[in-house]
Amino acid sequence: MKMQNIAVIGYGVVGSGTVELFEKNREDICRKIGRDCDIKYICDLRDFPGDRYESKLVKDFNVILNDDEIEVVAEVVGGATFAYEYTKKLLERGKSVVTSNKELVATHGAELFEIAKAHDCNYLFEASVGGGIPIIRPLNKCLAGNSIEEISGILNGTTNFILTKMIREQMDFDSALKMAQELGYAEADPTADVEGHDACRKICILGSLAFGRHIYPQYVHCSGISRITLTDVEYAENAGYSIKLIGTVKPEGRDRISAIVCPRLVEKSNMLSSVDDVYNAITVRGDGVGDVLFYGRGAGKLPTASAVVGDIIDCLKHRDRRIMIDWEDCRDKDYVVPYKQINNSMYVRITADNAEALKPVISELFGKVMYLERNDRPEEELAFITPMMKEADIDAALEKLSESAEIGSKIRLL
Amino acid sequence: MKMQNIAVIGYGVVGSGTVELFEKNREDICRKIGRDCDIKYICDLRDFPGDRYESKLVKDFNVILNDDEIEVVAEVVGGATFAYEYTKKLLERGKSVVTSNKELVATHGAELFEIAKAHDCNYLFEASVGGGIPIIRPLNKCLAGNSIEEISGILNGTTNFILTKMIREQMDFDSALKMAQELGYAEADPTADVEGHDACRKICILGSLAFGRHIYPQYVHCSGISRITLTDVEYAENAGYSIKLIGTVKPEGRDRISAIVCPRLVEKSNMLSSVDDVYNAITVRGDGVGDVLFYGRGAGKLPTASAVVGDIIDCLKHRDRRIMIDWEDCRDKDYVVPYKQINNSMYVRITADNAEALKPVISELFGKVMYLERNDRPEEELAFITPMMKEADIDAALEKLSESAEIGSKIRLL
Repeated sequence: MKMQNIAVIGYGVVGSGTVELFEKNREDICRKIGRDCDIKYICDLRDFPGDRYESKLVKDFNVILNDDEIEVVAEVVGGATFAYEYTKKLLERGKSVVTSNKELVATHGAELFEIAKAHDCNYLFEASVGGGIPIIRPLNKCLAGNSIEEISGILNGTTNFILTKMIREQMDFDSALKMAQELGYAEADPTADVEGHDACRKICILGSLAFGRHIYPQYVHCSGISRITLTDVEYAENAGYSIKLIGTVKPEGRDRISAIVCPRLVEKSNMLSSVDDVYNAITVRGDGVGDVLFYGRGAGKLPTASAVVGDIIDCLKHRDRRIMIDWEDCRDKDYVVPYKQINNSMYVRITADNAEALKPVISELFGKVMYLERNDRPEEELAFITPMMKEADIDAALEKLSESAEIGSKIRLL
Repeated sequence: MKMQNIAVIGYGVVGSGTVELFEKNREDICRKIGRDCDIKYICDLRDFPGDRYESKLVKDFNVILNDDEIEVVAEVVGGATFAYEYTKKLLERGKSVVTSNKELVATHGAELFEIAKAHDCNYLFEASVGGGIPIIRPLNKCLAGNSIEEISGILNGTTNFILTKMIREQMDFDSALKMAQELGYAEADPTADVEGHDACRKICILGSLAFGRHIYPQYVHCSGISRITLTDVEYAENAGYSIKLIGTVKPEGRDRISAIVCPRLVEKSNMLSSVDDVYNAITVRGDGVGDVLFYGRGAGKLPTASAVVGDIIDCLKHRDRRIMIDWEDCRDKDYVVPYKQINNSMYVRITADNAEALKPVISELFGKVMYLERNDRPEEELAFITPMMKEADIDAALEKLSESAEIGSKIRLL
């Protein structure tokens, strides 16, 4: 018997991809589920005259909410307003929800898991991190036997595209951003990507899942790539590093974690350094498995739809069974260790009239540093890498150094 | 209440790693499972006097089989004789079995899934491919919305180590193999690794899972790396390729597949080309997700244990629920298209007294080929890459060419 048991909310890029991929592979998908399933409704406030699936379009969310035939709903609206209300109501009715909405999961995940649990349905979010790259289930299930020691990832395709253009083609930041916008990779207002907020939500989701307690984005330090210059790129390349925007989360002792999103110098021998263009990659280090890496298209219509449809299938295949992928809430403000207390090795670029003469001062402040070179380095410029130091101490040293030099850049090493 | 509900059969490398990792992370693991679990028995015919877990050791498999408290058994014995009998008996008693045994899964998987299904328990095998790299669940669940278009992977760490030494250090095959043996990466009898049989079992498992029907290893063409020479490595490197032992499986039309394990020239732009040493990597191409890559340690004590323990947790977490990761049997001998009928582009190296003079003959036989160079190439040597041709046609052309030249090597391109 054919069940019309799926609804999609939001008929934008990911929504239309979800419908397209599901319908294309419907026969195989139904075989995997073990019964005949189909999309009954697509909910969007806009009109889509002449659309292939026009007959499925509805504007009223309540049509979906009140239809007992609907078992699973793909929420691909985005944002944490309507999507939040809709998701709560659906879960309260016992309908499973799958989503690509990283903002909602990062902001209200713990609460939504509680509601899903109470109503014996599922809230799945494979598409919220890394687009189509499988990462949520692998982390939750395949690596469950490990103590996770670190997760680091290139989690935003837009910024990785911009950095790739800067590194490979010596394009400056503004030109690379413009190109990304022209190609549709960056939005008109690129703030969420460029300033690292998007990557921040994703590392919060991964950290919450790995360590079992909700990491709220507001406690995670986040700096973007808009101040990276071609000069920094050149110093880094010469010394065998690529500059990448990296989200990182680690346990700090038994009960706390550290998490940060920032540009980092990544050694060329690290697989993350060769992840280019709009691709994403995530490395997970476990005490058993060592380092594993997941790589693929981190965004886009069909890659993201791949993860959404995978979650729909999982819900329908395991009807009446809870899929336990979730974490607890955490209102402890001290759970995330302030980033100033974390040890880092730092790339620093300074300018000063008497730059060479500052080397003894630099040694005194930082200990043994490594100086970097670039072609035609101006005499008044110095770039160096500090030893591992507590970030607060690095900042204090830089504060002192700023009395005799201008601090051009500071970028952490991975 | 503490349940002693786990048994491990085989206390070798993987078995001891499984016990070590489980006991190390037991507290966290029990929290994830939601109840207190522990390993009750370790079964091995050998004695381990003074071993930390000596009190758990038993020699009689029936102790495990007849103990109703045991819910899940890790079979890490290997081979398809005892392991096969044990696994069948355990599943018939409704005990779930998890395994790292690729030989058993590749040979008897379909039958064992049937038994597990009939007795409402699970047969899980995440550790059978790629050691600790999550690949089985991602393929089965996260990518379930895709039609899989190709799976290619570096599936054997020993051969990848040997090839890396040949490529990076110009070590010849025999010396590299000797080094691998000294480091414990290769066994005294290295045949299963070097001739590709181990990789063959793994690509059969991945293909069976992706396309839903059992692929038996005996139908899959398999050639190893023992005939790769430093000369071939040099030609390949010069032209921008690395030589890697690759397992590949693809659909051929709606109802058939092709599968092969062989050395291949892999373009440097392909992430697989930069997978070195004992690491493994698997790329999966889906119609939604595009290319995704999974990378990590493909073997070894704790990495493999990571996957085994992950499966143990999944079984215990979802007690009384079947985890649907399986495929159907397939006795259709025509399911795997013979490799001679598949199109390939081929690297060919020949020697002949009048090598240059053979170029018109080569053009006539193969069409437009690309000639490769190496330092101090002898006049009597030629190396070239053919266009995409059916392998049978390439062989026929080489047969003709062998009338006037000696065929030194032929290696497929990826």
